[in-house]
Amino acid sequence: MPRYALTLEYDGTRFSGWQSQEGLRTVQGELENALGVLLREPAKAMGASRTDKGVHALGQVAIFDTEHPVPTHRLIRSLSALLRPDIAVIDAREVPADFQPRFAATGKHYRYRVLNRSAPSPLLACTSWHVFSALDDGAMRDAADLLQGTHDFAAFRAADCHRDNTVRTLTAIHLTRARDDLLEMHVYGDSFLKYMVRIIAGTLVEIGTGRRSLDEVRRALQTTERHWAGRTAPPHGLTLMEIFF
Amino acid sequence: MPRYALTLEYDGTRFSGWQSQEGLRTVQGELENALGVLLREPAKAMGASRTDKGVHALGQVAIFDTEHPVPTHRLIRSLSALLRPDIAVIDAREVPADFQPRFAATGKHYRYRVLNRSAPSPLLACTSWHVFSALDDGAMRDAADLLQGTHDFAAFRAADCHRDNTVRTLTAIHLTRARDDLLEMHVYGDSFLKYMVRIIAGTLVEIGTGRRSLDEVRRALQTTERHWAGRTAPPHGLTLMEIFF
Repeated sequence: MPRYALTLEYDGTRFSGWQSQEGLRTVQGELENALGVLLREPAKAMGASRTDKGVHALGQVAIFDTEHPVPTHRLIRSLSALLRPDIAVIDAREVPADFQPRFAATGKHYRYRVLNRSAPSPLLACTSWHVFSALDDGAMRDAADLLQGTHDFAAFRAADCHRDNTVRTLTAIHLTRARDDLLEMHVYGDSFLKYMVRIIAGTLVEIGTGRRSLDEVRRALQTTERHWAGRTAPPHGLTLMEIFF
Repeated sequence: MPRYALTLEYDGTRFSGWQSQEGLRTVQGELENALGVLLREPAKAMGASRTDKGVHALGQVAIFDTEHPVPTHRLIRSLSALLRPDIAVIDAREVPADFQPRFAATGKHYRYRVLNRSAPSPLLACTSWHVFSALDDGAMRDAADLLQGTHDFAAFRAADCHRDNTVRTLTAIHLTRARDDLLEMHVYGDSFLKYMVRIIAGTLVEIGTGRRSLDEVRRALQTTERHWAGRTAPPHGLTLMEIFF
């Protein structure tokens, strides 16, 4: 039975996240509906990453199995047509039948975008967090340097995340200004706890506005106590950029 | 009577363009309504550029007069709050009472964005034209070089544009790839005829796909006959970036 991997782009604004939930509009649910229409058989999709409600993706990866082989260009075109306007299939390929995207993923790249000026931005409202106060990029870079590497990130996870192992490796955090008023945090790591990227973004922004100190970030890593880290930044600033296999 | 100049950003998707029209939702109309609420007096706004239905702006400039001076930071904050979510005031300043944005403008910068891949892009759907066929950037640059400079652009205007003088100066057209699949044309000029930037974009895309030749572009300039130029590219790929005074 052939297995296909799809690369998906989506605007998360009108979804209750990736994962199927009864009565809610989710990316997985919409994808499975479209696969059902295209393949004329019930289909299950498995994603490499469970993006939260409101989070966007330029490079989510999901697999499905089907009885009947389908040309990959048809998957791209027909599924995109069925899923428009807020999901698109940007790549499709056949993969080995035992390929498991969640376990095969060796790393992920997220972008967290902050609009940093007093006026809102109609064109970026859905894909950036609006922070009025001027941000000190240098201080934020110093904090990012503290977070890079292998640490116990238990202070940087959702209250309802109950993973036993909370040690993760942040390969890199790059801060860039795409424009004077647009700060992007590019976060690379092996795997992430629930809300981890958003809590890192919230912490760095509090460092940038001077509301939180580098020493508090050190304590968050050392004590693993949630209150030393910053607030959870809102989901709409976050985009899953790429998954590495 | 103080005169203020506002710099506006807007998402043109849900507007019938800049200019007030009875019964239609326009940027000028919404701005005048908001000014009326804020100033508690009827207000007239005058824009530097009449953007078409569906065209976006990062740097439209508009003026208004008022009996009562207003602090500029209040204009930015209060008007943005009244105009959200698809218009924002990103700058405000007092200008001389005889400042006329349309006539004082010495140049404009537009960006035309083309998504150039087979799959659509949910995150760029509202701000780029989706062109499936691969584009030859080199051929497009050659055509852009032909268009730069001072020419009679009568072949590059809307059928209902009746200006007597159709000679314009295109200071520069820069083509860049913001990503592999995202081509941006940055067009700079002193002033523009109706649809001129969109017809230039449409012509360059037809050059890029091989449907139109450089020789046809030369003829469009020489004969001023509309049929030698390309189609009018759709409005949602166009953004008014900046107006120079």
